[in-house]
Amino acid sequence: MKITANNPSRKSWLKVEIASDFPIQNIPFGVFLTKEDVITIGTRIGEYAIDLAALHQLNYFEGIPLTDDIFMQNTLNDFISDGRTTWRLVRNRIADIFDEENPKLKENKKHRDKVIFNLSDVEVLLPVDIGDYTDFYSSKEHATNVGTMFRDPENALFPNWSHLPVGYHGRSSSIVVSGTKLRRPKGQTLLPGETQPVFGPSRLVDFELETAFITTDANKFGKSIDINEAEDFIFGMVIFNDWSARDIQKWEYVPLGPFLAKSFASTISPWIVTLDALEPFRVAGPKQNPEPLPYLQLEGNHSFNINLQAAIKPKKQTETIVSNSNFKYMYWSMAQQLTHQTSNGCNVRSGDMYGSGTISGPTKDSYGSMLELTWRGENPIKMSDGTERKFINDGDTVILRGFCENDKVRIGFGECKGRIRKAK
Amino acid sequence: MKITANNPSRKSWLKVEIASDFPIQNIPFGVFLTKEDVITIGTRIGEYAIDLAALHQLNYFEGIPLTDDIFMQNTLNDFISDGRTTWRLVRNRIADIFDEENPKLKENKKHRDKVIFNLSDVEVLLPVDIGDYTDFYSSKEHATNVGTMFRDPENALFPNWSHLPVGYHGRSSSIVVSGTKLRRPKGQTLLPGETQPVFGPSRLVDFELETAFITTDANKFGKSIDINEAEDFIFGMVIFNDWSARDIQKWEYVPLGPFLAKSFASTISPWIVTLDALEPFRVAGPKQNPEPLPYLQLEGNHSFNINLQAAIKPKKQTETIVSNSNFKYMYWSMAQQLTHQTSNGCNVRSGDMYGSGTISGPTKDSYGSMLELTWRGENPIKMSDGTERKFINDGDTVILRGFCENDKVRIGFGECKGRIRKAK
Repeated sequence: MKITANNPSRKSWLKVEIASDFPIQNIPFGVFLTKEDVITIGTRIGEYAIDLAALHQLNYFEGIPLTDDIFMQNTLNDFISDGRTTWRLVRNRIADIFDEENPKLKENKKHRDKVIFNLSDVEVLLPVDIGDYTDFYSSKEHATNVGTMFRDPENALFPNWSHLPVGYHGRSSSIVVSGTKLRRPKGQTLLPGETQPVFGPSRLVDFELETAFITTDANKFGKSIDINEAEDFIFGMVIFNDWSARDIQKWEYVPLGPFLAKSFASTISPWIVTLDALEPFRVAGPKQNPEPLPYLQLEGNHSFNINLQAAIKPKKQTETIVSNSNFKYMYWSMAQQLTHQTSNGCNVRSGDMYGSGTISGPTKDSYGSMLELTWRGENPIKMSDGTERKFINDGDTVILRGFCENDKVRIGFGECKGRIRKAK
Repeated sequence: MKITANNPSRKSWLKVEIASDFPIQNIPFGVFLTKEDVITIGTRIGEYAIDLAALHQLNYFEGIPLTDDIFMQNTLNDFISDGRTTWRLVRNRIADIFDEENPKLKENKKHRDKVIFNLSDVEVLLPVDIGDYTDFYSSKEHATNVGTMFRDPENALFPNWSHLPVGYHGRSSSIVVSGTKLRRPKGQTLLPGETQPVFGPSRLVDFELETAFITTDANKFGKSIDINEAEDFIFGMVIFNDWSARDIQKWEYVPLGPFLAKSFASTISPWIVTLDALEPFRVAGPKQNPEPLPYLQLEGNHSFNINLQAAIKPKKQTETIVSNSNFKYMYWSMAQQLTHQTSNGCNVRSGDMYGSGTISGPTKDSYGSMLELTWRGENPIKMSDGTERKFINDGDTVILRGFCENDKVRIGFGECKGRIRKAK
């Protein structure tokens, strides 16, 4: 089925600023709360939130097989379960409804009042009930930087790294939507030169610049996914901040991996941008050497040219951009990650989330964490307000952004932001 | 409130064999499917499954604040959310209903036919929707054995082990109820002496003899639990087999911990035995040295004397018991595990599950995994059918059991079993 929603020459009758992440070619999916305390599934065009439940009730999705209450939900899980054909039909239809040449909704004020909200009048919510969350470690630059700092520059990568997308299970309960207030976590740490740990606020809170993808129900318990089909099960992507407390992590992580250093909070952007919307920005990923084992081999282009950015905004100050990276630097593709995840028969469900791992680029200004940007705090970053940062201070807001751009269209994710408040 | 359900002199008018794990003093909670395709929440007495939704509809829970549909659910999550007072009221009432001196249900055949099923006529299901699952590593004997085998007998435990309950996030989607058929997983492994990994069926499938506890909603995002309140949030326990593919684990686990070696399947026993029912078997855990940091200090007895057992049953043969261990060997208590989990503000929800980690005892016949029992396969175990086992063979059923016993009563968990079928 043709993705007519992606037509780059299409314009909307809703006003969209030129630099907007959300032109009519994006049509992401999310969940929001209206001033009338109604939770609904929606999309976003420019600075407007669109109520899909209202559109459905007014019969704008006629002919598309949807249950009556599919958009009257607190999460996207059921809609995601409907599968790719339905996602495409709905996205194509939404593009038609808001196309400047379509008068149907445009000229019906009564309908418009039920369907269209100013974004500032709604509260965006966590879009999915995340059953399981995996975080991968798929940027070669990031893994090399960390291995160089903490182990051995000559053997920065463990032998397994080049053969499989290393990953670990993360905590779902503490994944929150952009804007949710966070607290500096407490935990056990071992201070330099000491032999006895102490308990107290982490001194080394960091961000990790990541993306994450959300799946539909992919495979039954005990079955695996063929890599040629893996992308069919990916609904879309978000920008993801895998907040990390480096001092807690250092003390706790052997031998079973990161635990409380990560589970205090993880922030995602609210609008899930579909893989379909990203299609025009498909590119090849890094050349893989050694050649992956056959179950991870896939022809064609399976990465995306997504600009990634991290900024720090101290309280009452302007922000400073501290990193510019790109999704295309990621060594292992999403298709490879998902195939590997299911290679042992592990079942993947609608709403599961898979983080990329910190995506660092090849240059020092493209590293995706303060750990790497300041090289463990050795090279503090100058902020525009004159202060310096080794890690994240109380009161700082970290803002992550992601967008794709060509000469015709810009498709973005909006902001993934969170402010660290003092430990309590 | 008094736990009258625990009265050891109480007898039921339902027949209960003397060696049963499920006397009227147990009253665990589970979910089952009837022959009429109805899913209901229930309890078990002897070889009978009791439909709590039917009891509720027939007004047997009069006076207890319960919503009408609380037992007409596919999972226990909502009932668990009701909190400890409600769990106690319901357990006490069920004990009264089935007390041999109470004629009300006993002498009402019409009601009995609606409420009581032969266990063999129903199918037990996964009792909870497990949002997050953590697996701890809290048996000192197990951690020491593994550290001795894979690293250094002189420094078998990492320095952090004695200061905090080491744990990691596990995969929820592939947790299945006892009896669910399993497949030997495939995965990447590095064969001895080789430098290039291969992909294929795991050659070293193992069981791990564990327990797990299930929580209610405990704390809000950003808050922690005081250790003195931690047990209030524990609904009950199950027996847990954390199936492990040792060869996949060895190749994949650095530096982020176990991943696909564990996520192919984890099996739990179907009936959640409440912490209340285990109360008579409360004992002190091992003495902790060094003294834990203040946030993990707790007076009193916080372990339980639960006999644990593992048996292997080859296809069409009788079983061989390969391990006898006990929950009381676990170094870190459940209260300490839960407090540590939330010490960074990580929120705990109704239905979350926390595995103990393999519970090995001090003697060689009390080790909780084949890895330890056969010492990496060096000392195979003789089976009663004359064959030998280093790890688990295709066709083998692994059966884990747990029970408490004193001179008055036996409270058990029933079986946690699963058969490994050939990889496909």
